[in-house]
Formats: sequence, C-alpha cells, structure tokens
Amino acid sequence: MDIRRILVTGRLYDELAALLPDKRPDKEYRFVAEEELKADDFVWADAYIGFQPAGPFSLANLRWVHSLGAGVDAFLWGREWNRNVLLTRTIGTFGEQIAEYCLSYLLRDAQCHDVYAWYQEQRQWKPIAPKRLGEQRIVIYGTGEIGRRIAETLRLFGVSPIGISQSGKASAPFSAVYRPEEAEEALAVADWVIAALPLTAETHHLFDETFFSRLHNAGFINVGRGATVDETALVGALENRNIRLAVLDVFEEEPLPPHSPLWEHPNVLITPHIAALTSTEDAVRSILDTLRCIEAGTPLNNVVDVSRQY
Amino acid sequence: MDIRRILVTGRLYDELAALLPDKRPDKEYRFVAEEELKADDFVWADAYIGFQPAGPFSLANLRWVHSLGAGVDAFLWGREWNRNVLLTRTIGTFGEQIAEYCLSYLLRDAQCHDVYAWYQEQRQWKPIAPKRLGEQRIVIYGTGEIGRRIAETLRLFGVSPIGISQSGKASAPFSAVYRPEEAEEALAVADWVIAALPLTAETHHLFDETFFSRLHNAGFINVGRGATVDETALVGALENRNIRLAVLDVFEEEPLPPHSPLWEHPNVLITPHIAALTSTEDAVRSILDTLRCIEAGTPLNNVVDVSRQY
Repeated sequence: MDIRRILVTGRLYDELAALLPDKRPDKEYRFVAEEELKADDFVWADAYIGFQPAGPFSLANLRWVHSLGAGVDAFLWGREWNRNVLLTRTIGTFGEQIAEYCLSYLLRDAQCHDVYAWYQEQRQWKPIAPKRLGEQRIVIYGTGEIGRRIAETLRLFGVSPIGISQSGKASAPFSAVYRPEEAEEALAVADWVIAALPLTAETHHLFDETFFSRLHNAGFINVGRGATVDETALVGALENRNIRLAVLDVFEEEPLPPHSPLWEHPNVLITPHIAALTSTEDAVRSILDTLRCIEAGTPLNNVVDVSRQY
Repeated sequence: MDIRRILVTGRLYDELAALLPDKRPDKEYRFVAEEELKADDFVWADAYIGFQPAGPFSLANLRWVHSLGAGVDAFLWGREWNRNVLLTRTIGTFGEQIAEYCLSYLLRDAQCHDVYAWYQEQRQWKPIAPKRLGEQRIVIYGTGEIGRRIAETLRLFGVSPIGISQSGKASAPFSAVYRPEEAEEALAVADWVIAALPLTAETHHLFDETFFSRLHNAGFINVGRGATVDETALVGALENRNIRLAVLDVFEEEPLPPHSPLWEHPNVLITPHIAALTSTEDAVRSILDTLRCIEAGTPLNNVVDVSRQY
C-alpha cells in the first residue's frame, strides 16, 4: 500500500509535528488540532492518525487509520467502517502502565493504608496485620495484552489469577480461563475483579446487575472501557455490599459528568482515564513501525479485526 | 548441644503452646505470658524463645535464646551478652512482607492517589500522568536479606536500586552498592530512600541532620529500626523539604508516644510496626529447624553474630 499524505490530529499533534517529518521526510503531512479539522483535510489525506474520528471525519478517501490509543471503540462503536480502510492501533507500554495502576490499589488496600490513616488521626497505635497479595483471589476480565500483563505482574507476588474471556481459551499467566457464563464460582469467592475489556457488542454492559449479584464484598477495578459497566447497577452493588470498593478509571461518559453519584460515593475512587497514556515516544515508534510494515507488505501485529471490534 | 527445657513467651506463646509439644514431645516446656515470667523460670530453662528479654530475664542458665522477630536489638542493644549463649533469630517471610509494604507506598505516590482523591472531592476531571516506578531513583540502606528482597522486587519494575552497606560490597539485585560515606551523589538525586537497617552502634542515629541535608525533596521509608533515625532531625528535614514524605513503621520509642510531633505532620504516614510480622507458622518452622540443627550440630543459617549485633 502506498501512503503519501498523512493527516495527524489529537492531543499529541504538535509533538508529532516536531518529530515525524524528520524521521520520514518522504511523506507529506498536515498536523491539525481536532477542532480545526476541515472537510478538505479528509479529501487530501491517504492516512489519518488520531485518538478518535474528529471534525468532519470521513473514510471515503482514507486508506489507513491509525489509532493513537490502544482502544479503538471511538472509531468502531456505533459507526460503520469501510473494510477497505486498514485500521491499526498503538502498541505501547499500556500493559505495564495498567499493571502498576492496578497493583497500586490492590496493595493500598492489602496494606490497610486507609485504616492506618484513620488511626494516625487519632494518635492510636493499633497493630493489625496487612494482607499478603498472594492470598488475594483475583479475577481478570480480558485475557488480551492488557489482562495478561496484569496477570503476569500479580503472579510475581504469588497470586493465581483467573482469566475470563469470550473463548475461555487457556493463556499462560492465568491459573485458569473461563467464559463469562462459567465465571459464577470464581466470582463468589473473588476478593477482586479487574475489568480490562474493550468495548464491543458482547462487552457492552457486561457488568450488569446479574454480574454484580454474584460478588460478595469484592473490590472492582475498571481499566477497560466505561460502557462495559452499567453504572446504575454498580451503584446498587456498592449499596448491597456486593462491591466494597470500586476503583474506576473509565466511564460511560468522559469526563465523568458533575452530577454523577460516583463522584461522592465513599467507596468509589475515581481517576480521569490515566491508567494508560500514550507517550509521544510510544506514538512515534508505533506509527513508524506500522508505516514500515504497510509499505513492505510485512505482517502487522497491531491490525484491528473490525469484525471483532478490537 | 543438648536442649531439654524450653521457656516460651511473648505475643505468640499461647499459639505455640498448642503446636510445639506435639511436634517435639521429647522436650519439657513452659509457656508463659511476658508479665508472668518469674526468676525461677530462668533457673529452670535451657532455652528461651521470645521477642525480647522479658521479666527477670537472665542468661545465667540459658544455653540458647531464639528471637521470634528478625531483629535482635532488643536482646543486644545496651546489654551485655554472654558469648556462651547461642542467639538465633527467626527467618520468615519478612523480606517479602516488607517489599509489599514499601511497594504499596511507592506506587501510591507514583500513581498520585492523594492528588486524585483531592480532585474527586471537587468533582474535577484533571488527567495528570502517573509516574512509572522504573523512573524512580531509589537508594536502599541495608543490603541484607530484607534490603535485597526489596531491591529484587523493585527490579521487576525496571528500578535500578542503589544499595548502601557498611562494607560497600556488591550484591546482585543492586545496580551499585556504596559505603555510607560514599552515598552523597546518589542521595542528591534520590526520589526515595528506604531504610532497612538493624540497630547497631554503627547505625544508631545514622539518619541524622547531615544525612537529611543531602536529600532534595525525597521520600523516606523506615522499615528497619526506629533508633537509626534522629527523629528531631527528621522533623527538621520535613520542614526544609529535604524530605517531602516520610513513611514510618518503626520509632525510637514504641508505641509512638501521643506527644510525638510525627503523629500530626501532614507529610508523615505512620504504621504501628507491622511491615513484617512473625506468623505462627513462621515461628514454629524456624524454632523446629533451629532446634534440629543445634542437636545435629549442623550449620545454622540464623545465628546472630553478637559482635556485629545482627
């Protein structure tokens, strides 16, 4: 495939403008802020690089779209895709970043940070034993790159993580992998559930009232996509103590609207979609690698399977 | 060495009473609470098992003392020891426990938990990037079992930990090991200093005003012994921003007295000496292993070198 004119937009467009032309001076570029994109840009371009379809986005003349994020639901969810357009995504250090994010909350809880903060306020010396991470029963929804990386990290601390995937196919870092309909027993004894799922027709509102009713006082972390969770059901599950603590990095609507009851729930911790961020270095490397493979016709490891939606 | 009469005291005496006689019915035992120890117990016993010298503790008739904790300063600091009495200590999962303790605070900080809690209170969506653990420059005082285990754990996340020990001898999990007097450069750029030192004549108040003056806005964790830190100098270092955050599990006086200024300092987190606890299982295993080696005359891996004080 021959790519000549590349349209770059999104949060990193300025930084990419300073780096890409030097690396590949044989291409033509337009670096444009999302809000300044015009229809003409999409007539002009062969390729579009950004976090989401922005401005008067159109697939009509594009041959290649590269997502600067790992998730591509912004491009596919509720939209028609043209199968003649190649869709690729950034492969960066997302797994490592998300593993550190998850681990930080698992350890904060196991090490009783909040209990000790409370005693400190009262100048009370009350030794209670921290829990060991290896004793925690942890179920991870999503056995792709991200879920596997979380599982690998937890294994280092003696955890035997259970994976849940559509196929239920065994995968190395997991002690066992089940399909969602086989998860009931694992959920009943889970100390933590970590959601690391892409948004697809199958995963939309997968975490609903029925799902939450299977948990007993579990922690819940969502580092996948907000719309995999029915947020009303989640609030109910917090009230019923199916969930004792929810750590949420993603939401159905982002930024999370000011009127959401999640903001002030005492057992909810909110972070603004920062568990995995695309660095400029990751972005440049991924763009150059992908372009090189496209031109050489060699296999890509980051093509999105549009029919599976991830 | 022939051990016949074993005196067991301290927090775990009751649980050990339920387990030890079954395992080694060939011995005589007294299981006594610390506050009920009598002079006669020390006339009767060959061996003493406890966390500290309690009651009318006397070495006169003892042949073996086994510390239920990893630290033995309670037995040696400011006391005369009789070199004819064997002193051993418990080897348990202290290193792993302390590594999880340290990691929980390093990650909580890198992942900006407190910043996000603050934004959540104000219903503000402000993405700021977490720091990666691997970018942190971490200096560990103590290259023994505990310090090495912390270093090994941090290495898994890409940290290149610097060790500090009296000998300055290289040790595998550390990128470099220096003697205390060679530490200046490493301290000047350290993001974190972790203190994991036993209390000895050399380490008493090692962390003094001079030490703290070398740091620039660093985090400081003490999981060793409280008296290695000059607490007045530490409070000064917090005021001067040599230290931006102190996480303290051990103190010169424990329990930390109610009048200590550390309790209410906004940049101090206090835990009540829980970073490593001896479990009953660890205690039993260590006692039985040590007894077996003593009787068989085989080498012990947990003898305390009384002249080095650890």
